[in-house]
Amino acid sequence: MSDPTSSDDLRSAAPLRHAQTFVSSTPLALESGAELPEVTVSYETYGKLNAKRSNAVLICHALSGDSHVARHADEDDPGWWDVIVGPGKAIDTNRYFVVCSNLLGGCRGTTGPNFIDPTTGQPYGAGFPVVTVADMVEVQKRLLDHLAIQTLRAVVGGSLGGLQVLEWATRHPAAVATAIVVAAAPRLSSQGIAFDVVGRNAIRHDPRFADGQYYDGPGPEAGLALARMLAHITYLSDESMRSKFDPTRLQPRAIETGFESTFSVGTYLAHQGDRFVERFDANSYITLSTSMDLFDMGESDEELRTALEPSRCRWLFLSFSTDWLYPPTASRQIVDALVAQGRSVSSCEIKSPAGHDSFLLEDHMRDGARMIAASLSAEPGAEAAIRVPDEPQIDEPTGIFFARRLDYEMILRLMPEQASIVDLGCGNGELLAILRDRGHEPVLGVEWDQHEVVECVARGLDTIHANLDEGVAAIPDQSFEVALLSQTLQSIVDVSGVLEEIVRIARRGIVSFPNFAHAPLREMFMNEGRLPKEEGLYAYDWHNTPNRRFPSIRDFEELCNKLGIRIIEAIYVDSTTGAEVTEDPNLNADIAVVALTR
Amino acid sequence: MSDPTSSDDLRSAAPLRHAQTFVSSTPLALESGAELPEVTVSYETYGKLNAKRSNAVLICHALSGDSHVARHADEDDPGWWDVIVGPGKAIDTNRYFVVCSNLLGGCRGTTGPNFIDPTTGQPYGAGFPVVTVADMVEVQKRLLDHLAIQTLRAVVGGSLGGLQVLEWATRHPAAVATAIVVAAAPRLSSQGIAFDVVGRNAIRHDPRFADGQYYDGPGPEAGLALARMLAHITYLSDESMRSKFDPTRLQPRAIETGFESTFSVGTYLAHQGDRFVERFDANSYITLSTSMDLFDMGESDEELRTALEPSRCRWLFLSFSTDWLYPPTASRQIVDALVAQGRSVSSCEIKSPAGHDSFLLEDHMRDGARMIAASLSAEPGAEAAIRVPDEPQIDEPTGIFFARRLDYEMILRLMPEQASIVDLGCGNGELLAILRDRGHEPVLGVEWDQHEVVECVARGLDTIHANLDEGVAAIPDQSFEVALLSQTLQSIVDVSGVLEEIVRIARRGIVSFPNFAHAPLREMFMNEGRLPKEEGLYAYDWHNTPNRRFPSIRDFEELCNKLGIRIIEAIYVDSTTGAEVTEDPNLNADIAVVALTR
Repeated sequence: MSDPTSSDDLRSAAPLRHAQTFVSSTPLALESGAELPEVTVSYETYGKLNAKRSNAVLICHALSGDSHVARHADEDDPGWWDVIVGPGKAIDTNRYFVVCSNLLGGCRGTTGPNFIDPTTGQPYGAGFPVVTVADMVEVQKRLLDHLAIQTLRAVVGGSLGGLQVLEWATRHPAAVATAIVVAAAPRLSSQGIAFDVVGRNAIRHDPRFADGQYYDGPGPEAGLALARMLAHITYLSDESMRSKFDPTRLQPRAIETGFESTFSVGTYLAHQGDRFVERFDANSYITLSTSMDLFDMGESDEELRTALEPSRCRWLFLSFSTDWLYPPTASRQIVDALVAQGRSVSSCEIKSPAGHDSFLLEDHMRDGARMIAASLSAEPGAEAAIRVPDEPQIDEPTGIFFARRLDYEMILRLMPEQASIVDLGCGNGELLAILRDRGHEPVLGVEWDQHEVVECVARGLDTIHANLDEGVAAIPDQSFEVALLSQTLQSIVDVSGVLEEIVRIARRGIVSFPNFAHAPLREMFMNEGRLPKEEGLYAYDWHNTPNRRFPSIRDFEELCNKLGIRIIEAIYVDSTTGAEVTEDPNLNADIAVVALTR
Repeated sequence: MSDPTSSDDLRSAAPLRHAQTFVSSTPLALESGAELPEVTVSYETYGKLNAKRSNAVLICHALSGDSHVARHADEDDPGWWDVIVGPGKAIDTNRYFVVCSNLLGGCRGTTGPNFIDPTTGQPYGAGFPVVTVADMVEVQKRLLDHLAIQTLRAVVGGSLGGLQVLEWATRHPAAVATAIVVAAAPRLSSQGIAFDVVGRNAIRHDPRFADGQYYDGPGPEAGLALARMLAHITYLSDESMRSKFDPTRLQPRAIETGFESTFSVGTYLAHQGDRFVERFDANSYITLSTSMDLFDMGESDEELRTALEPSRCRWLFLSFSTDWLYPPTASRQIVDALVAQGRSVSSCEIKSPAGHDSFLLEDHMRDGARMIAASLSAEPGAEAAIRVPDEPQIDEPTGIFFARRLDYEMILRLMPEQASIVDLGCGNGELLAILRDRGHEPVLGVEWDQHEVVECVARGLDTIHANLDEGVAAIPDQSFEVALLSQTLQSIVDVSGVLEEIVRIARRGIVSFPNFAHAPLREMFMNEGRLPKEEGLYAYDWHNTPNRRFPSIRDFEELCNKLGIRIIEAIYVDSTTGAEVTEDPNLNADIAVVALTR
């Protein structure tokens, strides 16, 4: 009776065109204590499983998604993540065996409220048990066991899909090599839950809901449409709604609808609501949105760390600047917890105007696609799917670039061999990649510029998208051998704070900076009476320099002294000659590289 | 038939305990083209109208408010704005005659959908015409005419009430001395409209709505409760919901409700919804929320300026940092339009965690109350209600304070008498108040620190809460005789931009700054090799100075030269002696005050 093909009249229970069906007849014990006597799973696959069965990628769908993640052929119906899944795309179906299944509790072929409850002979309806994200993952695990897949190259998902990724990585750590969590968080905000509650109340208070047993009637279409309209607002951003609707505010779209059609935004939402009820089951909506609301890895940092402890995978977190449902700050909480545990993790907060839905949109997933492709390729045994940028061109024999190379050389001299490194303000990862290639491990970058972070992740470097205050606070005491701060001192707001952090998180700090008290600068100021300039980091005018600080070697030493930080080694160079300076470096050197410890 | 007292069975039509009723029997032509044959207005008053009838303050209520703005006595029911209205409060009923009336379209005694339509003998219900904010204001105008009040000391309101203030000031400019607009905007965002649309759809799709003719039955309670729950979310902030509900996420409050009670936030909202339907009429909700959505002063700056052109009042705008329904950016749009027209305007964006509802909450209206009190007192003929801070204590004979007084003295020397002045980065308004008291008019301050803005407004100075980029852009070309930049240059990001703006908006710029090339600083740097320090604005260490720029007189002159800005006068002083410096000021002066023009 639970085969959906035998109950065609049940709302949306018919499997999708390319879906395959697997029936697990072992009873499924749910987290709530309830039990399902058997589970049907509707799923689609793309690409070929390789001989080692090592190239499988599981994609987890969001609340209103289904197994049809991508087109199987050009003439096929569009998939919900065609943007990154397909031949030659970020999740390349020429290389990976992609699996996507309809969720437990869903309405596109996997056991859900529209299935027949064998104990009553009626559809489960509102009697379908509460399902958690962990229950969904258990069903996916059964499917993978059925497909004889022991390990996943990656589990990937956005929104509710991202919650499943979190659950996979912590529940089946041995099965997951890489976890890619997009637009998700350790828990939904109270504001997010509130919107869901109002939506579910709208469904349940539609008289046609009939306590969830509406399958022989028209169903709670108004209530479900209201819930969808409301949720849809939370998927967009204030900014994107402005650009979509403000120019035509009082020009409603010409649609047939029973909903208010005074404002253009109203008719847009009415259309979204009306379309949604054609393809979605209200009981599934209640079931899946409740599972989102119940998902909770803990609020305190400690709870989060405990929840994440079992994971063994590499992690990549993508979030979007205008996503107010699962905002970047919430994603960052998980990243910080993983950093605190010394896990391999990268994160990027992608600037996008399109809100939560950004993860589904080509324009806003370009950087995301690049980082996802790199994360998949970075797995041992896989050849690079994306072109790793060439080694830096340091071809200028003099000047800024020469000074930069000198800076690198001096840092390498102070660097213990194979030491683990955190690079604070790592830029595009040029230096960190050199260090990794010389055998340093682990290496972690912290960078605040999105484009630089993308470059770093594309190079295969673990990189946290954070400013120096936030990114560093999560790193445990003495967890790296070296903390590096290369030519970044002059742009820092809280210099003392960052120096204290450096000697807290690492046994050795290595700090390079330009010396503002270099003789030509002093003389220029003395004789000319204006803020001195010099090629390199001091090549700016007084009125437009991005530098906030003008450190001299003496200033720096005095501050370290005041902070109780010891300078254990130092190299000073005159970059115009490349010669090391031993006599009065504060006068004669323009670059300082200093090794520190507490 | 339209007397609500004769239709006690109509939902909430009974007037409030202290309300008086005025019936205007002249037909009211609405903006929509519809006409109401007569209008009943329910209103309350506080305090006494003075003999000149010049102390009236009209308060306009928000969507779910009513005429009961404050207690009439200690034992009275609480009013919705007791926080600032009452004896000795910001809107002091010992001094002002306060009037507050229930809105047209409301349900607490003023003509609305629950009134009997004389043409049918039935309640208007959903047949009540569309009402605009302008229509509401016309009804209030009739009430004031009835009370023989020609001019209002002030019109004050928040949210929908703020929209009425905007309408009053532009529709009846001669009647309004001061307009105080709280938590409002020229138009609601598309996101805001979207939430309202979903709420109204929930009401109309409740079968008990019965096309709005439900007055003999139970009414669309579920739909109205859903609309209220949803709206309530938009009145709070993400931050305030977090602190209210996160600690008890899965501990629902023990309330009797037909709504979902899984999450604490859900039961809170259910309680809000259940309570609201006891006191509010669904047709009124539709009518009033639609009037909010339709209110539109224009989106472009030009449309806004045209809409605001008729106003003649002094303006005060208050907004709240976490208000996402009528955010500070939207309020600022009106402020900018008024600044562009050279109107008398002050604004403050109050930092508050409590979202839109902040304007109703004592904790978050302290600064607001102070500014409102000052704005009311500032009217000609009124004695000061609040204590204006004492003149600055500049009692240090030497050092920083001495330098500051010297700075003021030099500025006064370069200042044309009675010139109009805009002070960029005006701080607490100390200097600007001195200038005003010396007869300068008009004077306008621009300041980015909230607490300083409050001080300025409390001094009765027109002050815009903005950073120098945003605040200055709105000021028209050559609209002031003098633009002042006193000791602010060193903290500006875009120095060239601000200098260009100064000579654009004023015929004369007066800029004072500390001279970084003062001899002792040069020598210190030359001899000691560290970033030099000196008492005053350069008294900071290299690593924690708030200064971003280190201008010297020479640097400044060269930049002006490059920008095509002419220095027409300059005074240089050595602040340790107080003597004017004529010989090599870049070496010998530590303060420069320079007059500029294009």
